[in-house]
Parts: sequence; C-alpha cells; structure tokens
Amino acid sequence: MTGINKAACIGGGVIGGGWIARFLLAGIDVDVFDPHPEAGRIVGEVLANAEKAYAMLTGAPLPPRGRLTFCKTLEEAVAGADWIQESVPERLDLKRRVLTEIDAVARPDALIGSSTSGLLPTDLQRDMTHPERLFVAHPYNPVYLLPLVEIVGGEKTSAATIRAAMERLAPIGMKGVHIAKEIEAFVGDRLLEALWREALWLIHDDICTVETLDDVIRYSFGLRWAQMGLFQTYRIAGGEAGMRHFLAQFGPCLAWPWTKLTDVVDLDDALIEKIGQQSDEQAAGRSIRELERIRDENLVGILQALKGGDGGKGWGAGKLLKDFEQSLWAQGGRAATSFHPSKPLKLVETKVGPAWVDYNGHMTEHRYLQVFGDTSDALLRLIGVDLAYVEAGQSYYTVETHIRHLGEAKLGQAIHSTCQILGVDEKRLHVFHTLYDTATGEALATAEHMLLHVDSKAGKATPAPAVILDKVKAIAEAHANLFAPEGVGRHVGQKR
Amino acid sequence: MTGINKAACIGGGVIGGGWIARFLLAGIDVDVFDPHPEAGRIVGEVLANAEKAYAMLTGAPLPPRGRLTFCKTLEEAVAGADWIQESVPERLDLKRRVLTEIDAVARPDALIGSSTSGLLPTDLQRDMTHPERLFVAHPYNPVYLLPLVEIVGGEKTSAATIRAAMERLAPIGMKGVHIAKEIEAFVGDRLLEALWREALWLIHDDICTVETLDDVIRYSFGLRWAQMGLFQTYRIAGGEAGMRHFLAQFGPCLAWPWTKLTDVVDLDDALIEKIGQQSDEQAAGRSIRELERIRDENLVGILQALKGGDGGKGWGAGKLLKDFEQSLWAQGGRAATSFHPSKPLKLVETKVGPAWVDYNGHMTEHRYLQVFGDTSDALLRLIGVDLAYVEAGQSYYTVETHIRHLGEAKLGQAIHSTCQILGVDEKRLHVFHTLYDTATGEALATAEHMLLHVDSKAGKATPAPAVILDKVKAIAEAHANLFAPEGVGRHVGQKR
Repeated sequence: MTGINKAACIGGGVIGGGWIARFLLAGIDVDVFDPHPEAGRIVGEVLANAEKAYAMLTGAPLPPRGRLTFCKTLEEAVAGADWIQESVPERLDLKRRVLTEIDAVARPDALIGSSTSGLLPTDLQRDMTHPERLFVAHPYNPVYLLPLVEIVGGEKTSAATIRAAMERLAPIGMKGVHIAKEIEAFVGDRLLEALWREALWLIHDDICTVETLDDVIRYSFGLRWAQMGLFQTYRIAGGEAGMRHFLAQFGPCLAWPWTKLTDVVDLDDALIEKIGQQSDEQAAGRSIRELERIRDENLVGILQALKGGDGGKGWGAGKLLKDFEQSLWAQGGRAATSFHPSKPLKLVETKVGPAWVDYNGHMTEHRYLQVFGDTSDALLRLIGVDLAYVEAGQSYYTVETHIRHLGEAKLGQAIHSTCQILGVDEKRLHVFHTLYDTATGEALATAEHMLLHVDSKAGKATPAPAVILDKVKAIAEAHANLFAPEGVGRHVGQKR
Repeated sequence: MTGINKAACIGGGVIGGGWIARFLLAGIDVDVFDPHPEAGRIVGEVLANAEKAYAMLTGAPLPPRGRLTFCKTLEEAVAGADWIQESVPERLDLKRRVLTEIDAVARPDALIGSSTSGLLPTDLQRDMTHPERLFVAHPYNPVYLLPLVEIVGGEKTSAATIRAAMERLAPIGMKGVHIAKEIEAFVGDRLLEALWREALWLIHDDICTVETLDDVIRYSFGLRWAQMGLFQTYRIAGGEAGMRHFLAQFGPCLAWPWTKLTDVVDLDDALIEKIGQQSDEQAAGRSIRELERIRDENLVGILQALKGGDGGKGWGAGKLLKDFEQSLWAQGGRAATSFHPSKPLKLVETKVGPAWVDYNGHMTEHRYLQVFGDTSDALLRLIGVDLAYVEAGQSYYTVETHIRHLGEAKLGQAIHSTCQILGVDEKRLHVFHTLYDTATGEALATAEHMLLHVDSKAGKATPAPAVILDKVKAIAEAHANLFAPEGVGRHVGQKR
C-alpha cells in the first residue's frame, strides 16, 4: 500500500483534529496551521479521545505516534507535505482563498483534500494553478473512529489524483468511497438532510419527542444500517422474490401523502428552544464529554463485533478494521525481530475497554485469557508463526493453561503483558505470561501455557521446522538465565 | 412485569412469523391463523432463523418454548388469547375486515395489535364493537432480533390499552415506543421514506451505485445511529456550545438546494432494472439465505457489544438485552433449584457464535473460559449468589484456573457444560467443569477452578453465610459419590 509520508492540516477544529489524530496514530508526522487561539486545546482534546479509543479498539501494534507541530504560517505547515487536508469553516470564499494559498506553496505532487461537507470541488478549485490535485475528502465525526471518506473530484481533478487519494486511506484505517458525479452535499449529507428535514417536522408537529425519535432509530433500522445500509437490507426484505419484486411492491407507496416533502420547516427560535429542551431531558444530566465517551466506547464495541462478522472473516467496517490490524501486525512483526530477549518479552499493551468489564467495572474472567492468548499470538508472530504460516497449514495450538488471579484489572486501566519461555522441544512450547497494571507495575495475573506445534488439517502434533525452532530457541536460551517465575508448575488448590 | 399468557397471530408471513418466534421463544403459546398455503413453511423458516439467533444472542436460560398451533379458523386461533397480533397484507379494507372478525370473537379484555406500517388506527378500528382495545404495534424486520415496536393509538383507543401493550413487550425482549399522535407511517417509516426517496434520486441520476450508497451509510452514520440515533448524535456535534447552538448553525443549510425535495422519483421499469442489476452485483452471488444469516449474526454481535456499553451497564438495545437476560436468569434460577444433583450439573447450553471464532471457524481460546465462567456463574446463582447478593457486597471470585483442550468447538456448533463440585469449605469452593459437543457427547475441554468467597468492598476473603453454604454443601455431598474426573489436580506439562 502507498502511504502518506507527511501530512499538513489547515484548520484544527473538531474535524481537522480528527484528521490529525488519524494521521498521528498511523505514525505520520503532521504540521498544523490554524490561527484560532483555541486550536491547540481543541486538537489536544480530540487527540486524547482518539488515543483512548484506539487503545480499546485494537491490540495490534500501532507504529510510534507521528510528530505534531503547530506552525506559525500556512506555508510552513504545507512545506514538504504529500497530503494536505483543508478543514476551515464552510464558506466558499474562505475555502477558495485558503486552497489557492495552499496551491501556491505545496509540492507539485502533493494531494490536496478538502473536508467540505457540501461545496462543489469544481467551485473550490476555480482559482488554483494546479487544480488537478484538488479533491473533496469528506469525513464523518468522530473522524478517528468512523472510517468513511467521500472522495469527490471536480471538473479539473485528474483521475490519477482520485486513484492516489483512495489508495492512501487504507493504511490509516479509513475507507475511501468514490462518488462518481459531483453534486452539492455529495451522498451522505443528502441522505442525512432528507431524513433530518422529516425529523424536524415530526418534532415541530408534536408527533414525538427527540428521545422517542432517537429510540425509533436506535432500536430498529439503526442496527441494520450499521452493517448493511439501505439497499442490501431491502434486498433481504424482498426475500426469494428478489430486489425487483420488492421495488415493484414498494413503488406505489412513494406517491402516498406520507411526508412533508414540499415544505421546508422554519427552524425558528420556538422550534430551536423546543428541541433544545427535549434534548436536555434526553441527556439526563450527562455532559458532552460523557456522551462522547459513551459514543466512542459503543463505536469501538460495534467495530469489534463486526470484526467477527461473516463467520470470523469480518464484515463492513469490521472487515476494514481486521485488514488494518493485519497491516499493523505485518509492520509491527518486522520491527519486533530486533528485540533483545535478555528479560521476559513485553508483548501486549492495551487498555481495559467497556466491553471487557462487568457491571461493577472489573475486567471479566475470560478477558484475562484473551490478553494472555494475544500474548501467545504476539510471541508466535515473533518466531515466524504469522498469518501466512498458519494459512499454509501449520500452527501452534494451546493444549493446557493455568491461570492465577492476583489482583483486579479495572475499566480504562492501562495493562501490559510479558512472556518468559520455560522450555521448547520439537513439538512443545512451554511459556509463562504475566499481566501487569502498567501504572503501578503490580502483577494482576499469571498464565502458564503448553502449546503444541500442529498440522492443522491432520489435526495432529508435528515437529516445528528449523526456521521456527531456531528463532524460539534463541529466545529460550536467553531466558534460561532468568529465575523460574513464582507459581510455575502449580496445580489448582495447591498450598502456597 | 405483566406477561402475555396466550398469543394469537393472524397472518403468518415474514412479519407475522417474527412475532410468532418472539412469543414462542419467550415461552408463550401461540395459535396461528393464515389461509396462505405456504404459511407453515414460511413460519418454520423464520422460527429456525430466530432459534439460531437466540442461541448465539444469550446464554441466559430461555423458558421452555411455547406451543405452536396452526388453526383452521380465525375464531379458533383467537379463542382465549390475551394478545392478538394482526399481520395481514397492507390494505385498509382487508385489515378492517379481519380486525372486525377478531373483535367479534376475542376475549373482552384481549389486546389487539396491528402490524400495519402506515395505516391509521382510527381508520382500522372504525367498524369494531370494542375499538378501545385496538392499537398499532408496528415492528421491524427481523422481528425476532430488532426490539422496536411503535405503539400508536387511534381516536377510540383507551389509555389503559396503550399502557397494557407497552408493559407486555419488555418480558418478550422488545421495546415499546409510544407515538403521541397518529399520523400515516408513524415515525420510523416517515424517516425511512424521506431517506429512501433521496436515495432513489441518487441512483436515478447516476451519482452513485447502490453499493456505494450502502457503503456511505454503513461506514459512517449507520454506526452512530445503531447506538444514539439522530438528535443525541447532533447534541455531541454541537460540543460545549450545545444543541441550540448547533441548530442555529445548521438552520440555514435547510434552505440550500440540496435535495430533490419537491419531486417524487418515477420508479419505472428502467429504474427498477438498474437498481436490480446493481443490487445483484453488490450481493456478489450471496443468496438471500446467506445474507439473512450474515445480517442476523451481525445484529447479535452489535447487540452484545452494546450490552457492554456505558461502562458495562449496557446502552440502548444492549441495555434492553441485559434487562431481558436478568429477567430470564431470575426465572431460570427459580426453576433450577429443583435440580437433583446426583450427577454433574448441566448448567450452560449455547451455540458457537460468529464473534467467537477465528478466521478458520474454530472457537477462540478465551471463549472456552467465557463458557466456563458462565458455568461458574450459573452454579453461583443456583446456590443463591445472584445479582442481588453480589450487589449487597459479597461474591465468589475465581482465584485459580486450569484448562485442558481436548477437541475443537466450531462455528454454529451446539455446546453445553457441566459442573462437578470437588470440595467446599467456609471460604473456598473447588469445582470442575467439562465442555461438551452436544451432538456427539465428546468432551472438548475441561476447567478446574478454585473460587474464594469475598467481601467485595474490602477485597478480602470472608466466610460464606450458612444460607449459601447449606445449598452448596447439599450438592457437594451428592457429588462426593461421583468418581474424581480425569485430569483433576494436573499442572501444566505433567505427563498423562
């Protein structure tokens, strides 16, 4: 995949901040220009949220965070960048002026994306000397978690620019979707606008409150749309008779007098106040910060759930996350071969996410084994047992496990694990993991495992090849000098 | 909670079948009347999907499935029912006739719900003798997984009917939402209709394909709506400035020429064919059955993810699932006290869901411990350590675990676990669980655990009270006659 080397972000509000977080967490240096006096604070808050979310989202090894620099001038920020993202307020004259300034100082081969949620790229690129490299890259809030970027070209945008832009989004975990023709508001905001207008009428006419309307969405079609969208869902609704049958049946309804489609609601002070009051009631005292936290935790949970979709292969945004993690492991695995194993290997670092705790905030029993399993996986990748190796038909399987609980991991806590190799022969690999509270260094749990090298198809143990054994033996020899960890060889109920 | 004793379903298509599945799986007997020759087959297929989904959705003890009876006449089906659900085709004359027939033979205190997705309850109840008990109960497909039911009363519907209808939905895992004023299409379909109309224009005008449009939804706002809906999401977007500020900013956009709002697209043969072809391409050869399976697995995954939302307390549809499970455990726990423990207790029955397997369809390592942890929880509930006991400040914590892997659990496989008590004293509880392939009876894994009775606040072991010890000792004494299971007391790496 072709990656971005250096990004420039012009405008650092909530959307610009989200882009900045995406780039930094993917290991890309970012230079920012934003004259707003609060820009540093806002970007810092978005970045803090993004880091919390990523820590829960994935156990894959993120690259070292990119370097963040606030620049005094636009020119300074843009210098040397190969992706420049403009996220200034939504006014055509302002955006046009900023993009023309960027155009004057950017590298000739730089890609220039605009975060506009509705302006036409043809209008934006009008005054540029190199308009072929300008495109709309419209993301969704929170940019650090929602993968979608609508990619839209204007009359003068080159096909090569669109291709290059699409290619560079996957390595930062995003999903570029190319909109074939430019229209105001593109696709997502057109759909949102249509529904939003109808929603305002329903509140205006006292058919329901904002809480009822939200409940109608989130207990029904919201759950369908998170995974399949509109048409695929209706394809299923059509059943064996198929999509054409469904449409033919549905067609007449469109002419029914079901919506206020010819009128635009007047969003006057009275309606604003009504919605504001109902929204306050719905929030039930929760602050915006708290709602943001809940939203992000839920997004993380949904993305992780979809990662298991389609029989474990991943579905939609979950498939994207799975692909992103695999590319991180591929890179992280390479970096990890330079480890010096003179002490237990530090292999997994993560945070206790909301889906991992019980109602009183303690990490659930089986999540301890999840971290220990991830630790074994990280060790295996380190010795060459990666996805390609497993797909070729051999692997290590855990056959026996002993866990001791020494303390409690709690929601939001940073934890990490280490691995000490106790023994290895042709077929067997004997390891001892420890899980730590990262802040205090306290050991929370230990796990002793026996793994067997197997031929997956035959379902039988088989000797590991030399290429693997050499790597694991090198670590095992270094670990032979370490003390045997406390608790090795224990059986359940044994006196201390 | 007030429950339904016997349900009648008039009309057994995809929607009627979904209602039937909801009732049966909640333990309610259902009498069905549908003269359609394929009704039995269709209901059977929906029910099979629902049972698969429920098995993955929850490990909580479902009550014995209700009895399903297909009746020869409407009168026979309605007799004795206290909830009658009408799900016949969407024509006012037909529905009015059917509801009037129901009205003539139903118990005077029966609740009569209509599944109409758009007709006014006032129009539906016009010819009824007891119109006060008629209301709209509009569900969403798949009815057995999506919790929403829009409850709408007509001019003659009594307030008591609405109250009773809302109350009876929670015990079957559904979320009744009362729509204050009746309008055609209520709330959900109004919103869907507005968005659908815009979507058809986007396809008609070649702005994008159906696949692109679905991707725009499912990689962005679909993920937001599954958990928060529209207004709560925008409240966050407004940031610290709040909802009123957000609305004031957003207001002017509504007047922009962004949607085709004054026109209704002509869904002619050409457009139907275009959408049909694009939908075929999007499906990439997947059958409707396969798409249904993927949809249901994803819904299960999302619901389970949201169950962990809000710091483990549950959020939205996940909170609803959590509440539903707690009521199932409360009922199941009562039933379980009649166990006779002359052999290992069979405590958990479940199916291996899609979020539980790795890319080659094998159950992930930590999910074994999840089932074993659920087995310990089930044992604890059986001896009186239920949620109320835990909330009062005491509990059993697992301190040590030993797992042996003997076979492999695979996607979709039915599995169950048993528990044998090895020993108990004032503070300690020593147990041995076995996980079986339900079809073959093969043991897939075993787990030996030591649990300690603790004071949760003090974080210290403390003697269990007599009321708990008496129950656990009664089982332990019966189990003392059983052979010690193979593998007890093993340590990792011990020779067989």
